[in-house]
Amino acid sequence: MHEDILLSNERIDQLYSSKIKIIQSSEVFSFSIDAVLLADFADSLKKKNSKIVDLCAGNGAVGLFLSQKVNGKIIQVEIQKRLADMARRSILLNNLEDKITILNEDLNNLQGLISKDSVDMVVCNPPYFANLETSKKNPNQYYAIARHEIKVTLEQVIEVTSGLLKFGGKANFVYRPDRLLEMLDLMRKHNIAPKKIQLVYPKKDKEANIVLVQGIKAGKDGGIRYLPPIIVSEDNGKYTNVIEELLYGKGK
Amino acid sequence: MHEDILLSNERIDQLYSSKIKIIQSSEVFSFSIDAVLLADFADSLKKKNSKIVDLCAGNGAVGLFLSQKVNGKIIQVEIQKRLADMARRSILLNNLEDKITILNEDLNNLQGLISKDSVDMVVCNPPYFANLETSKKNPNQYYAIARHEIKVTLEQVIEVTSGLLKFGGKANFVYRPDRLLEMLDLMRKHNIAPKKIQLVYPKKDKEANIVLVQGIKAGKDGGIRYLPPIIVSEDNGKYTNVIEELLYGKGK
Repeated sequence: MHEDILLSNERIDQLYSSKIKIIQSSEVFSFSIDAVLLADFADSLKKKNSKIVDLCAGNGAVGLFLSQKVNGKIIQVEIQKRLADMARRSILLNNLEDKITILNEDLNNLQGLISKDSVDMVVCNPPYFANLETSKKNPNQYYAIARHEIKVTLEQVIEVTSGLLKFGGKANFVYRPDRLLEMLDLMRKHNIAPKKIQLVYPKKDKEANIVLVQGIKAGKDGGIRYLPPIIVSEDNGKYTNVIEELLYGKGK
Repeated sequence: MHEDILLSNERIDQLYSSKIKIIQSSEVFSFSIDAVLLADFADSLKKKNSKIVDLCAGNGAVGLFLSQKVNGKIIQVEIQKRLADMARRSILLNNLEDKITILNEDLNNLQGLISKDSVDMVVCNPPYFANLETSKKNPNQYYAIARHEIKVTLEQVIEVTSGLLKFGGKANFVYRPDRLLEMLDLMRKHNIAPKKIQLVYPKKDKEANIVLVQGIKAGKDGGIRYLPPIIVSEDNGKYTNVIEELLYGKGK
């Protein structure tokens, strides 16, 4: 039954904690723990008519996970045609076509597609690395575009996010700690007040390698909260209970 | 023997991990775990002629602990006469008069006392709270001055720190996470590039309530590292091993 929906070299992965199935391929960028953490970090929006936008959606993992904890509609935006097509088929595979829409668009060209100041929540896992002449980029263009600021810069992501959000709407990002201050500067520049930060450490005695950031459009300055640390693995390399539950659910 | 060195209502506390004795009194602000964490966070400076300044020194805890891991001289600066006097007697009590000097001065008046651009490392535990009309302050003036920006603002602390430090010299602060971004902004404004941040969480599932920050005078922008999380207590309220070692030493 699944064969119809898969192209060659594609597989279906399932996140057992949410029963969501995701079409993946080793030929393109697959979702990683960042997507799971971001979907968990974002608020549960229970309002029926809420509007959520997932920018840099890739093969759609964040929006698919998020669909389990929010009501209302999710619009995913992905510039890469092949990834957007995989995301579209994952939506069908999970019977979520009433809830999730995918736009195969450059996020800089959303005028006329999503109204300004209309969105309750944005989630985004932006490319992590600056696109420098000297950057060592993956020769696979799908990976390179997902990881490097080739098609979009961090500032463009944040400016577009701010434009989409209602006053009081929430932006949620997952990013690299070594560029966190740059992200906070850009958020403030574009009228998003940083409010919550959560650092993710690969092990309890390692430096943080992922950070989750939430800001509020036109929010008041000051008073950022640093949520409890997330430790990914025990010293022996096994996932911690927190991560096990996120990936496999409480019942596992 | 100790009686000579103590005034009434004073006691001697010892940090067992370092054998340092500290004169304290419940009538004034006593050192807390912040001081222990800051002294541990600051680099071990092994250079013989290094110059270290401890601003907002209080009763001298940070400089006393730090004296065990740095060579060179430590100058402590404390505006409150009674606290500076306690710090002076603790220096004598520990036979550290060749290594530590205490200045009973306003840190805004250090011209002529400590040369500009001459210091290798500054450590400081600044007052944490803004001095607002509405702030609820301790009626005990010693506590109020230690906790609130009555005698000095965060910006003054950082500006003075930057003026004292050599190019490449290191500033180390312990502060409150909800004002961390303000601290980072002020550091950058005054030519100190933030480089290392370490968050301290009271328990593993609680929000951070202390942050340690290191910056480099005239350092390059970008690339802040977030050191492993420090968790102070286990779920049952006992100190974690990391904190036990800091307070009582490995042998305890």
